[in-house]
Amino acid sequence: MAVDISTLVAALPAGRVVTDPDVLGAYRFDRANDPDAGTPLAVVRPTSTEQVQAAVRWCSQRAVPMVVRGAGTSLSGGSTAVDGAVTICTEQMTDITVDVATRTVVAQPGALNADVKAAAAQHGLWYPPDPSSFEICSIGGNIATNAGGLCCVKYGVTVEYVLGLQVVLADGRAVRLGGRQLKDSAGLPLTKLFVGSEGVLGIVTEVTLRLLPAQSTPATVVASFPSVVEATRAVLDITAQIRPAMLEFMDSVAINAVEDMLKMDLDRSAGAMLVAQSDAAGPAVAHEVAIIEAAFAEHGATECFSTTDPEEGEMFTAARRAAIPAVERLGPLLLEDVGVPLPQLPDLVAGVAEIATTNDVTISVIAHAGDGNTHPLIVHDPDDADETRRANKAFGQIMDLAIELGGTITGEHGVGRLKKGWLPDQVGPDVMEMTAMIKKALDPQGLLNPGVVL
Amino acid sequence: MAVDISTLVAALPAGRVVTDPDVLGAYRFDRANDPDAGTPLAVVRPTSTEQVQAAVRWCSQRAVPMVVRGAGTSLSGGSTAVDGAVTICTEQMTDITVDVATRTVVAQPGALNADVKAAAAQHGLWYPPDPSSFEICSIGGNIATNAGGLCCVKYGVTVEYVLGLQVVLADGRAVRLGGRQLKDSAGLPLTKLFVGSEGVLGIVTEVTLRLLPAQSTPATVVASFPSVVEATRAVLDITAQIRPAMLEFMDSVAINAVEDMLKMDLDRSAGAMLVAQSDAAGPAVAHEVAIIEAAFAEHGATECFSTTDPEEGEMFTAARRAAIPAVERLGPLLLEDVGVPLPQLPDLVAGVAEIATTNDVTISVIAHAGDGNTHPLIVHDPDDADETRRANKAFGQIMDLAIELGGTITGEHGVGRLKKGWLPDQVGPDVMEMTAMIKKALDPQGLLNPGVVL
Repeated sequence: MAVDISTLVAALPAGRVVTDPDVLGAYRFDRANDPDAGTPLAVVRPTSTEQVQAAVRWCSQRAVPMVVRGAGTSLSGGSTAVDGAVTICTEQMTDITVDVATRTVVAQPGALNADVKAAAAQHGLWYPPDPSSFEICSIGGNIATNAGGLCCVKYGVTVEYVLGLQVVLADGRAVRLGGRQLKDSAGLPLTKLFVGSEGVLGIVTEVTLRLLPAQSTPATVVASFPSVVEATRAVLDITAQIRPAMLEFMDSVAINAVEDMLKMDLDRSAGAMLVAQSDAAGPAVAHEVAIIEAAFAEHGATECFSTTDPEEGEMFTAARRAAIPAVERLGPLLLEDVGVPLPQLPDLVAGVAEIATTNDVTISVIAHAGDGNTHPLIVHDPDDADETRRANKAFGQIMDLAIELGGTITGEHGVGRLKKGWLPDQVGPDVMEMTAMIKKALDPQGLLNPGVVL
Repeated sequence: MAVDISTLVAALPAGRVVTDPDVLGAYRFDRANDPDAGTPLAVVRPTSTEQVQAAVRWCSQRAVPMVVRGAGTSLSGGSTAVDGAVTICTEQMTDITVDVATRTVVAQPGALNADVKAAAAQHGLWYPPDPSSFEICSIGGNIATNAGGLCCVKYGVTVEYVLGLQVVLADGRAVRLGGRQLKDSAGLPLTKLFVGSEGVLGIVTEVTLRLLPAQSTPATVVASFPSVVEATRAVLDITAQIRPAMLEFMDSVAINAVEDMLKMDLDRSAGAMLVAQSDAAGPAVAHEVAIIEAAFAEHGATECFSTTDPEEGEMFTAARRAAIPAVERLGPLLLEDVGVPLPQLPDLVAGVAEIATTNDVTISVIAHAGDGNTHPLIVHDPDDADETRRANKAFGQIMDLAIELGGTITGEHGVGRLKKGWLPDQVGPDVMEMTAMIKKALDPQGLLNPGVVL
């Protein structure tokens, strides 16, 4: 039986429900560009928790599935539209309020990570998690995936900053979890359960985040290496001694793609490049820079360059952040997010190169190397059926390799729809059953983000 | 129908199951000293995950409830024995293995926090969470309560260090959650769900913890204040500017009790005392010490004393850690663990004083002041029925006050059995229902730690 959308339109204030097919088209894909994306039944663009509740109640009463979407930057298909499902998009929920006294910020989920950072900075405060996409990704999406980023090697991932949440449950009830208190052991740790839950347990409509005092201006050290293996060994050497504030890796494909795009005189002949930062205070920064430089030299670095100038440092950080869009100019990407315990990093990088050769596909590897989290980027031409088949094969083999090395299929992007076939291999049938039981307990009709994770 | 314990004895290796009534008596109470403690049906002291599984299967098949116990130092009755329940005590599961390459430690749950710290220190590494009871409390208990401590104001609580867990579920299955990888967004964040779950969802049998490089030797600043309100204002003044590595508070009752016990020349006439530390590197430490000293002076501190000598610093830290046992010498305690957002700390401390006066009971307040987490200690004579009644009344009123101020009934000790009456007032009926649904999903017979949280 067809669902009567007019009752959804009537349940929300004017303009909140989109049914125009031309506009719906804009909500089909996220940044995973899944060719199998559906078309939303309707898109709801709420501005308040109450409006999210109204939309969820409408769906729940009719057993209509819901896709939860923030800024639509998911790289794993977490917000890809599903035929017959209503997409609830939080992009217009962008309020941000900083509370200096408790050093916290309360944000609506559609607020961009960059805007939260900027609001904090106005008060001399800092919200650390910094996905490369921080200028275009939403805080709600960051919470859905427990997003990481570049400084997380020292400052931790999203979950370490989430003190409180407001969540709309599958039946439309809104609950508050946690709050502004810094420590809270009262009851099950449900706040944490929702960070990284990819919208399958509820829809986050407000978040309270802990802020830190502003970061010290970091020093940046950049170096080129003859090969990826030497660069990854330098990474292990550094992390065995200090906690750098950033330790990023790019292979030669990424270096050349970035150079093509940004023209910043990167060494095109290098096998790999590392960008490290130290934000230690006072003379400690020189001590850390010396350790980084020594590790770089020890592992064959050429063109090692150090700077305490924030603009120069940001230039190299920006180069690393530009790697995904730069490599994307070579062709559509299958994006990986595999992570391993640090000592296995060289094996992972070497294994990915072998998978590229075996399958005759181009794979560029960039990485948050300091925490063992890599992004192999598989370039392929979707119009070339054979190459697409080989790319997909490599996509699976890289996840198999990460699992074999005791790692994870996703360090910060989430499982979404694209990786769920590999999740059981990583966590095993008992954990999948626990996952299903918790999902069923909180969303008995299975309406929230169908096809994600489970 | 009576349960035949001999089959439990037979299901485990010789000596693992205790049925001797004299020995069982030692497992009735934890440090909450609940007068209503039951007596275990039997105590199982496993040495391996497999033995925990055998015990859990035996209980599960017979619908026999289980109490989970580590070192028995719960201050909220989390491991108090229940009549008719088997107590599974992990005290003999004490293996600790440090992996320098991944900067992690794998420990069995009965390992003491102090032993984990010591094992890490042997490799120049550091496990930060430091409950005052760190010398006698177990890592398993720390995970059950998401324990905090003194350095957590800067370094975070237990959950921020837990990378992986092995957990025995209510039906006896053992699962592995997370691992040695530093970032992991694969599937629901079940690792985090178990940290702070107080043994009601499963029994942790192994934990993988992240370690940090050794802490810099901290500088310590101690000062006396004429009143508690001035001291709490100094706390806010400091946390608005820097992240101290410790910021601890004692009121005059605690100062005098500690002085009685340790004879270290504390100022008995002071209204309150603060102990702060900075572990910033190089000259930054002097900068932070100066900020702390200025804040202390601004709020009327007398006898301000600073030292960079680690032994002198440890002496004052030890004094603060000794506060609970010292105050306990005045009489049995009802121990609170209430926390509030920092700006409400002066109101909480003033409100507790009023509750003490109204109910005519002695309440000493000590606090991890830097994160708004306080431990009001209500002294009472259990043989004095009227005083006990007044003490219990104050116990509830303090939790009511914390909730009213937007805080929590427990910052780090857990709800246990003693505080569960107040949990619904803090989190509300919907969150209680979510809690019950998740409990039911993972422990459908309701056998794990009955009476705790729910």
